[in-house]
Amino acid sequence: MAIRTLVWNEFVHERENEVVRKIYPDGIHAVIAAALAGEADMDVATATLDQPEHGLSRARLNATDVLLWWGHKVHGEVSDAVVERVADRVHQGMGLIVLHSGHFAKIFKRLMGTPCSLRWREAGERERLWAINRSHPIVQGVGPSIELPNAEMYGEPFLVPEPMETVFISWFEGGEVLRSGLTYQRGAGRIFYFRPGHETYPIYHNPEIQTVLRNAVRWAYNPIGWPEVAAAPNVPVERAPEKIEAKGAALHQAGEAGYR
Amino acid sequence: MAIRTLVWNEFVHERENEVVRKIYPDGIHAVIAAALAGEADMDVATATLDQPEHGLSRARLNATDVLLWWGHKVHGEVSDAVVERVADRVHQGMGLIVLHSGHFAKIFKRLMGTPCSLRWREAGERERLWAINRSHPIVQGVGPSIELPNAEMYGEPFLVPEPMETVFISWFEGGEVLRSGLTYQRGAGRIFYFRPGHETYPIYHNPEIQTVLRNAVRWAYNPIGWPEVAAAPNVPVERAPEKIEAKGAALHQAGEAGYR
Amino acid sequence: MAIRTLVWNEFVHERENEVVRKIYPDGIHAVIAAALAGEADMDVATATLDQPEHGLSRARLNATDVLLWWGHKVHGEVSDAVVERVADRVHQGMGLIVLHSGHFAKIFKRLMGTPCSLRWREAGERERLWAINRSHPIVQGVGPSIELPNAEMYGEPFLVPEPMETVFISWFEGGEVLRSGLTYQRGAGRIFYFRPGHETYPIYHNPEIQTVLRNAVRWAYNPIGWPEVAAAPNVPVERAPEKIEAKGAALHQAGEAGYR
Amino acid sequence: MAIRTLVWNEFVHERENEVVRKIYPDGIHAVIAAALAGEADMDVATATLDQPEHGLSRARLNATDVLLWWGHKVHGEVSDAVVERVADRVHQGMGLIVLHSGHFAKIFKRLMGTPCSLRWREAGERERLWAINRSHPIVQGVGPSIELPNAEMYGEPFLVPEPMETVFISWFEGGEVLRSGLTYQRGAGRIFYFRPGHETYPIYHNPEIQTVLRNAVRWAYNPIGWPEVAAAPNVPVERAPEKIEAKGAALHQAGEAGYR
Repeated sequence: MAIRTLVWNEFVHERENEVVRKIYPDGIHAVIAAALAGEADMDVATATLDQPEHGLSRARLNATDVLLWWGHKVHGEVSDAVVERVADRVHQGMGLIVLHSGHFAKIFKRLMGTPCSLRWREAGERERLWAINRSHPIVQGVGPSIELPNAEMYGEPFLVPEPMETVFISWFEGGEVLRSGLTYQRGAGRIFYFRPGHETYPIYHNPEIQTVLRNAVRWAYNPIGWPEVAAAPNVPVERAPEKIEAKGAALHQAGEAGYR
Repeated sequence: MAIRTLVWNEFVHERENEVVRKIYPDGIHAVIAAALAGEADMDVATATLDQPEHGLSRARLNATDVLLWWGHKVHGEVSDAVVERVADRVHQGMGLIVLHSGHFAKIFKRLMGTPCSLRWREAGERERLWAINRSHPIVQGVGPSIELPNAEMYGEPFLVPEPMETVFISWFEGGEVLRSGLTYQRGAGRIFYFRPGHETYPIYHNPEIQTVLRNAVRWAYNPIGWPEVAAAPNVPVERAPEKIEAKGAALHQAGEAGYR
Repeated sequence: MAIRTLVWNEFVHERENEVVRKIYPDGIHAVIAAALAGEADMDVATATLDQPEHGLSRARLNATDVLLWWGHKVHGEVSDAVVERVADRVHQGMGLIVLHSGHFAKIFKRLMGTPCSLRWREAGERERLWAINRSHPIVQGVGPSIELPNAEMYGEPFLVPEPMETVFISWFEGGEVLRSGLTYQRGAGRIFYFRPGHETYPIYHNPEIQTVLRNAVRWAYNPIGWPEVAAAPNVPVERAPEKIEAKGAALHQAGEAGYR
Repeated sequence: MAIRTLVWNEFVHERENEVVRKIYPDGIHAVIAAALAGEADMDVATATLDQPEHGLSRARLNATDVLLWWGHKVHGEVSDAVVERVADRVHQGMGLIVLHSGHFAKIFKRLMGTPCSLRWREAGERERLWAINRSHPIVQGVGPSIELPNAEMYGEPFLVPEPMETVFISWFEGGEVLRSGLTYQRGAGRIFYFRPGHETYPIYHNPEIQTVLRNAVRWAYNPIGWPEVAAAPNVPVERAPEKIEAKGAALHQAGEAGYR
C-alpha cells in the first residue's frame, strides 16, 4: 500500500512576491508534490492554509501517513485547534517532515517543547550539507555532501532538544554552522527537520534535495499506528497482572476516570 | 548564593479530602518546603493556584532558580499564559521538578511535546524505585532502591520522549513497571520528573523521598542563565564571521525582523 | 533479497548439562534458527564456537546481514581476533542481536564500551516484559507485555550506555527490574540487546519470544552497507571543497597516511 | 578538596619535530598543566608514555579525578593493560578529556566502541568552533564561537556514537564541519572529546582554549565514585526484595559466581 503523503503549504509568498512566484509559480507545495509523485510507493496530495480547516480536517489527517510542512510568513494564522490535531496524529504515528522556516511553525514548537530559535542571514551564500551517517536511509543517493550555491543562512545555537540522530550538518560561506537534518520520535510518530528551502532560491528544484525528501518520506512512515496513544486507562485491582488486594485510602471511586 | 527554590501546589485535595488533609494539613507544598528549608544552600518559598497569577508572576519566576510542581485535580485551571511564562523561564535556565500526577500538568506536556499518558491503579500497593546509575547526583544518600509500602501504580507505556537519563525505574506489587525518574534538558533548563507522591499516602514525609528531592533541586539548578534563549537575531552580511557579499534575491529588507 | 541471518551459539551447556539438553537437544541455535527459518524474507544458518574460526570467517561475516549471539559459560574462549572481525562488520552495517547472558560476551562489551554488569538470581521466578513503545517494530504481534513463568532474574543497575530506545523493561517476581530490550546504533550497524533466554527454561520455544526475535532481525537489518566506515581519508588541499592555500607548518608529507 | 587532575602526553612529536618543539619546548602536557595549575580547585600533575606503566599505575589512577589525554603518533605503543586500567577507572567515575588526535587513541576507541574515524587535512586553515548550548558549563567564559587562525581540519563523518550532548561544532575554511565537542557518560565516568590541538600550531596557548579545558575538567569531575561498578553480584533467593521460592532447574550452585 502506498504511503499517503500530504504536502502542506501556507502558500503566501508565492502569491505576493514576484521573485518567489517565478521560482514556484504554482506554489512550493506543487514542486515538492511533483518531486514525490513519480514514486510508485507514494500517493501524494497537497493542502494549503486558505482551505477550510487549512485542508487538515481530522478525516484528512487520519488518511495521511506522512505530512510535509512548509510555512514562513504567517505561522500565526494557523489555528491552534489544527495544530493540536496534527500533534495528535503525529503521536499516533503520522510522520512529519518540517521544512526550513518551519522551525518556527506552531506544530514544530509544539512537538519540540523548546523555542526552536536560531540565527539567520539572507545573503544568498553557499551552503554545504554534510551527511553524518553515510548509512542512514535519509542520505542515500546523494554524495558525502550536498552543495547549494545560494541559501539563507541559519546558524547555531538552534534551540531544539538533543535529537535522536544528527543526519546533516551545514557549513555556510559566511562562517556559521547548523545541525540541518535532525530526527525525533514523539509517541509513534517520526519527525525529520530539514533545513534547506529558502523561497527566493530554487532549492526544491534541486535533484539532491528532492532525493532527500523522498528518502525522508519513506523514513518517516510508520506503518504501525497507535490510535490510543494518549489514553490513560485505569487498570483495576482485579485486572492487575499480579494478584493484589487494595490497601489504604483512595481518591477515586471504582471505574472513575483519572484527572487530566 | 542560595538556590532560590519555589514549591508550587494547586492545593485542592488537601482542602477537600479528609484523608489528604490528615496527611498534609497545611498542604503538600508545606511538607516539601520543610524538607528543603533546612538546607544551607536553599532559599525556599511556596506558591499556590489561588494566588494572583497562581503566585507565578514574571517577577517571581525571574527570582526563582528551581521550581517544584505539584498538581493533580485541576490541571485545566492553570492559565495558559502562566504556563508559557514558566516554559520561557525553563528555557532560560530555571530548573523544573515535576512531581507524580504532574505528568499531566500543562507545563510538563508543554515541555515534553508528547501526551505524557500512562496506565494507573489506586490500590495502595508496594512500589520499589531502583536507581539505574548509582553515581548520579540525584540518587545519593539512598540505597540501591527505595521502597514505598503504599503507592498509586503508574505503568508503562509512559508517553514521554526518550530521556537524557533514566534515573529510577519502579517495580509495582501488582506487576507493572515505570520509568519513574527521568531527566531532560530543554534550552538552558534542566527538568526532572519524579513519580512518587500520591496524596492519600504520606510519601513526602518519607526521608528517602525527601533526600531525592533535595538532590534533585541541586541537580536542576543551572547557575548559568540564558535570557535571550528565544531570540532569533539577524546577522547582517557586514557582520558575518567570514567576508561575503550578498547574492541573489531577498525577502527581507535590511534590519527587518524575521517572521515568527 | 532475503536477510542473511546467522545464529551463533557457544553450544556448551546443551552438551554438558542434562536439563539444558532436554530443552534444547540440538542446541539453542537450532531452536532459534527454526523459529526464523519459516520466514520468506530470511535465509537462516547457524555457527558454533567449535567450528574453525568459530564459524565466523571474514567471508562468512561478509555474507551475513544479521547475527544473533548466544554465549554464557565460555565467553573467554572466543578469540579476540574474531571479536574484532565481528565488531568491524557491525560498524559496516551488519545487525547484531545479543541474547541474555551475552551481556557479558566480549563482542557486546567491545561495542558498548562499558562493564555491562548487572545483578542476578537463578530462582525460576516469573518475569514480565513491558513494551515501552507500542508502535516499535520489535514489539509487534505481542501484547502489552510478555509473561515468562520461569526466568533467571537480571536486575538493575545494568551498566550499558543510555540506549537509543528502551524497548522493553522487565518486572521480576522477586522485586527487581531491568531494561530488557535496548537498541543502539554503532557506525552503520544496529544492535538489539534482548534479555530473556536462560537455558534451563524453554524460553526460546515461547511463541511470543520467537515473534520478538523475528521482528528484531528485520529491525536490525540495514540494507545500506558502509565498507569504508573505519577509513580516515586525507583530503588534500587541492581537493578541499572550498579553495584554500596551505598555511603554516605541517607534520605530514603530501600523500602520507595519518597516524593510528 | 581539589580536583586531582592528571595531564597525560605520549610526548613524542615535541622531541622529534623542530616545529613542535618550538611551540611546546617542555611538551604539550606542560602547557596544558600550566593552564590548569593556577586554579584553586585543581591539583595538577603530568604523566608521559615513557614512564613506568606510562605513569598510569593503578595507584596513580586511583588518586586521579580527571585525566586529560594527548596522543598522536604512537597510539599503538600504549599497553593494552594500561588502557583497560584507565577504562576501569572511567567506569568507576574518573573523568576523561580526550584531545584532538586522541580520537584514535586506544582508550577512546575502547570507550566508544566505534571506529572513531574521520576525514582530515593539514593545511593550517581557519577553524571556528560554535557553542551549541550557551548555558553549558563547558562553554562559559568564551564567546558564541572560538576562532583559531590555523588548524588541522577534521571532517565529518566522525564515527562515534550519538553523544549525550553536542557542545561544539566546527566550521573549517576549506568547507568541512565537525562535531568538535562531545559529551558521553560511561558508567560513573564523564567523557569529553575536544577537537582542537594540532601540535604545529600554538593552540593550547590560546586563552579561550585554555578556558574550555578548565571548564571541562570541572564538568568531568564526578565526586561520586562507584568502585564496584563492574561487579555482578548474585542476589540469593533469601535476599530477594520480595519473598519468593526457587522453582525449576538451575545451572548454578548456591553461592557460585556467575560466568564472565
